[in-house]
Amino acid sequence: MTRSTLDFATRFAPGYGTLKPSAVREILKVADRPDILSFAGGLPAPELFPVEAMARAHEEVLIQDGTRALQYSTTEGHPALREWLVARLARRGIQSDLSRLLVTSGSQQGLDLITRVLVGPGDLVLVEDPTYLAALQVFEGARARVASVASDDEGILPDALEAALRKERPKFLYVVTDFSNPRGTSYPLARRRAIVELCRRYDTLILEDDPYGELRFRGTHLPPLAALDENVMYLGTFSKTLAPGLRIGWLHGPAPVVRAVTIAKQAADLHSGTLSQRAASKLLETFDYDAHMQTLIRVYGARCDAMLGALDQHMPEGARWTRPEGGLFLWMALPDGMKDETLFHEAVKRKVAFVPGSPFFARPNCHGHLRLNFSNRAEAAIVSGMASLGEAMREVQKNAPRPSAVG
Amino acid sequence: MTRSTLDFATRFAPGYGTLKPSAVREILKVADRPDILSFAGGLPAPELFPVEAMARAHEEVLIQDGTRALQYSTTEGHPALREWLVARLARRGIQSDLSRLLVTSGSQQGLDLITRVLVGPGDLVLVEDPTYLAALQVFEGARARVASVASDDEGILPDALEAALRKERPKFLYVVTDFSNPRGTSYPLARRRAIVELCRRYDTLILEDDPYGELRFRGTHLPPLAALDENVMYLGTFSKTLAPGLRIGWLHGPAPVVRAVTIAKQAADLHSGTLSQRAASKLLETFDYDAHMQTLIRVYGARCDAMLGALDQHMPEGARWTRPEGGLFLWMALPDGMKDETLFHEAVKRKVAFVPGSPFFARPNCHGHLRLNFSNRAEAAIVSGMASLGEAMREVQKNAPRPSAVG
Repeated sequence: MTRSTLDFATRFAPGYGTLKPSAVREILKVADRPDILSFAGGLPAPELFPVEAMARAHEEVLIQDGTRALQYSTTEGHPALREWLVARLARRGIQSDLSRLLVTSGSQQGLDLITRVLVGPGDLVLVEDPTYLAALQVFEGARARVASVASDDEGILPDALEAALRKERPKFLYVVTDFSNPRGTSYPLARRRAIVELCRRYDTLILEDDPYGELRFRGTHLPPLAALDENVMYLGTFSKTLAPGLRIGWLHGPAPVVRAVTIAKQAADLHSGTLSQRAASKLLETFDYDAHMQTLIRVYGARCDAMLGALDQHMPEGARWTRPEGGLFLWMALPDGMKDETLFHEAVKRKVAFVPGSPFFARPNCHGHLRLNFSNRAEAAIVSGMASLGEAMREVQKNAPRPSAVG
Repeated sequence: MTRSTLDFATRFAPGYGTLKPSAVREILKVADRPDILSFAGGLPAPELFPVEAMARAHEEVLIQDGTRALQYSTTEGHPALREWLVARLARRGIQSDLSRLLVTSGSQQGLDLITRVLVGPGDLVLVEDPTYLAALQVFEGARARVASVASDDEGILPDALEAALRKERPKFLYVVTDFSNPRGTSYPLARRRAIVELCRRYDTLILEDDPYGELRFRGTHLPPLAALDENVMYLGTFSKTLAPGLRIGWLHGPAPVVRAVTIAKQAADLHSGTLSQRAASKLLETFDYDAHMQTLIRVYGARCDAMLGALDQHMPEGARWTRPEGGLFLWMALPDGMKDETLFHEAVKRKVAFVPGSPFFARPNCHGHLRLNFSNRAEAAIVSGMASLGEAMREVQKNAPRPSAVG
């Protein structure tokens, strides 16, 4: 006997029944086709994963202490790993300690749990314009009101932020200060100070997401907001520096928030993988993490340069793009009137893919951008991919209805 | 400059600011002291973890395909692992397929995500009496109304369930049909059929949590509810059979629910550990899982028998306990008037610990029970531990105010 008439849509909690799969997810399905040269994903370069060191670390942990590495462990995370992270954060100017640091299953989990702990239905969250689209998904799932604050290539505009804060105190402001996703750009020091100062004045929490901060290939390292104010909540991850497949991130923040998030995490998944945490910790005992960072920086910098050079050469008039100093992405404004999805379909015909820009906006009707990833492809592929993208763009321009000459 | 006056409690979303750390968590801190012989945790026996096979599997996966094993992967889970799981579920009579199966970060995550997807503030969830306490935490976090349905050692009482369903349709009924946590008891076949039939009649979803079902050391395997009705949502895990430290569980259920939970999982942690999933899948290609199950069953059965024998010998008059046919736990009703926490403190003086029963009840003022784990200690330790527990109980009885003779 079946209940095939069960209508599940009516059973879902508000916020979940209506959640569509992320646009990126659907697009990545096309982009994942083996015949497609994709610049869509946010994948690090797998050929740079420290595979051998990782294999050795897993073997050592399992042979030396397998029964503990495979057992349940504490929600807070593996103590030795947490101590390493506290020391590493200190090098970025962030004063943490074990009461202010929680290991998470990737920084995505930190983002999700902080939102669950702080944000109820109808609560306001402020974001950059554009912002990380999976953050938008999290905020939508929590049924938050999301307001984007006008931003330029140096981050959120202080005047716009102040205007927003004057109107209403949000639950928090969500920012990616270094090499943001999707823009690829960073906040200069003065802008960082201004944002922190404003949020302090208006008694507003900041959630700073920093997956890319260590991957600076040009310019000078600047302090994260969490180094400027002890109440900033800060997310980090090994996903872009060691290996995303381990699912290890961390949250640093005010002790009461970390405590509440720890309890939420206990209910969410008890704890992150014991073996993965212990293997990462073991690896970091002997692995030259800084030398590894230098390799990533060199390769990603060269790939970024290859992309910038190819764009200079192949893009038609009217397209503009950011010139990142680090990270994995750059962001392009399309020539006037060109739509991201139209270009996407034209690009896929030429076996090239990217992520349309619209899902990165909390605002509707923003169809004039695209995001390009440069970390996951070799330079030659980047050059040929950008040539194809340029062709696709010209094709769209050719087919576009000419604007009628208006008197 | 600091904002030490920041009052975080006022900033937390309803349901989170007030969440206390689970009672068990605090108690386990005492129970974790190295001088304490603890029967409190729900830990499998670490000496039975397949450490060598696990080390080999990780090594093979990393050497053969390290770049993919360390990369991001799909939210649904590793395809080969999911296929293995579909086949394994079929052996338990559950007809699943890839559209109805999601890999989760332990079954705790399945429980949490299903709740997020289906339960909004004020929604009703029905549970056994008593029930798994971390499920209660999840439901509290979602601000659900939780109602416990009268239950005996054969599970939820059909009459009580029908009375509850007649009053109000809950979002779902949460049950552990095999070797429940905390009782350690199972539903006979007739009771399973009655529960499924009632929920069908009252158009109510069932969430069946089955971490222990394969660990039957006496009696006959019975079909899970998910084998009796295709709309039952079902949670499984490797935590009690392979290794909890991998954090691999799974959810089987109606395709629309699995789809919605997959989207919620994407926002919650993108996906579960790639390497852990691939290593588990690789291990299962050659590892004799059934022989391993037989070892667990033999050892846990002997430990359970040792505990039952020692209880028969050492418990004072008035204590009663369940006689499990599988799983990890048994459940004891204390002599009349004895309180679980009083006994806990007396037991800790004798260097023995257990989990007081009260946090397993959705109802208040249930202080007459305790839960004992038998999987995590050798037989000799179990025997001496139960002797100490008996002494502690006698001490509490000795100190108890005598009931005044009335009329």
